[in-house]
Amino acid sequence: MSGRQSPSGLVLVNAGDGRGKSTSAFGVILRMLGRKKKVALIQFLKHETGQWGEAPALKRLGLEPIKTGDGFTWTSKDLDETRARALHGWEKAQAIIVSDEYDLVVLDEFTYLMDFGWLDADAVIDWLKLRKPPRQHLLITGRNAPADLIDYADTVSEMVKIKHAFDAGIKARAGIEF
Amino acid sequence: MSGRQSPSGLVLVNAGDGRGKSTSAFGVILRMLGRKKKVALIQFLKHETGQWGEAPALKRLGLEPIKTGDGFTWTSKDLDETRARALHGWEKAQAIIVSDEYDLVVLDEFTYLMDFGWLDADAVIDWLKLRKPPRQHLLITGRNAPADLIDYADTVSEMVKIKHAFDAGIKARAGIEF
Repeated sequence: MSGRQSPSGLVLVNAGDGRGKSTSAFGVILRMLGRKKKVALIQFLKHETGQWGEAPALKRLGLEPIKTGDGFTWTSKDLDETRARALHGWEKAQAIIVSDEYDLVVLDEFTYLMDFGWLDADAVIDWLKLRKPPRQHLLITGRNAPADLIDYADTVSEMVKIKHAFDAGIKARAGIEF
Repeated sequence: MSGRQSPSGLVLVNAGDGRGKSTSAFGVILRMLGRKKKVALIQFLKHETGQWGEAPALKRLGLEPIKTGDGFTWTSKDLDETRARALHGWEKAQAIIVSDEYDLVVLDEFTYLMDFGWLDADAVIDWLKLRKPPRQHLLITGRNAPADLIDYADTVSEMVKIKHAFDAGIKARAGIEF
């Protein structure tokens, strides 16, 4: 077993290509805020000025999401800029994690930074093993989670797409998909 | 194709044995409330007086979950009572759906009523096809979703357990699991 032993803070990963990775993270955040726990949410690829349905509701609950992206989703006009912003996001996340001010830190869409080769997964995991406060929960979302991250995590759910309205030509709906 | 054609309201199902089915529903609710949409949440198996992390946060956002259960999770001391409460919950849900007052209706853990044989899946789907307001989104969660429900739905995600802290003997954490 190379996993962590009896941690007081859990490492959770929402993986897979189906819907529900980020929305499930928002649900966990809702539960934590409902229990008056402190939560930090870092959204890695979303544009810093983008309007997402979750943001106003989270703000009403006292949580301001930290967006570090440039609007990149699957195509970027300036990949150097996208990459630089993502890496800057990781630096922000590291500072938030080591501050030990939060009961839960959510790194939304963080797997892509490792999947794209912008960050080395082993270096990230080694850093987390060394620096993440033991009591702190950490929740990471995104497709193509590295095997070593799966191994490191305590709980991993894979969201599998059985069918999606997109495939039937039905457009995304405000409130449901974003 | 026996699915629905170009609906304005989507039918979504969060299925599977992994974590994230209900929490993802809470995340969608958060998005809908953030967009000032009206949401009804009916929780089928949770005890009506149970304390769940999501409830106080949802209340702060103006949503009072409707719980119809008797605390049954996987063992019931009085299965007739559990079944009667579940079926009463479905009657409540039907009234809420046809009222057309909501943009999204969430039936949390509803699949079990069909899986346990308390409700006939085909009868439920026939009723939904006939009576669900076309513009209304419907989100159903739970394990063992009937094949006909999968077929009826527009979008289905299966949450697959890759690993879970429970299996390593780590107990459930307030805010994360409940």
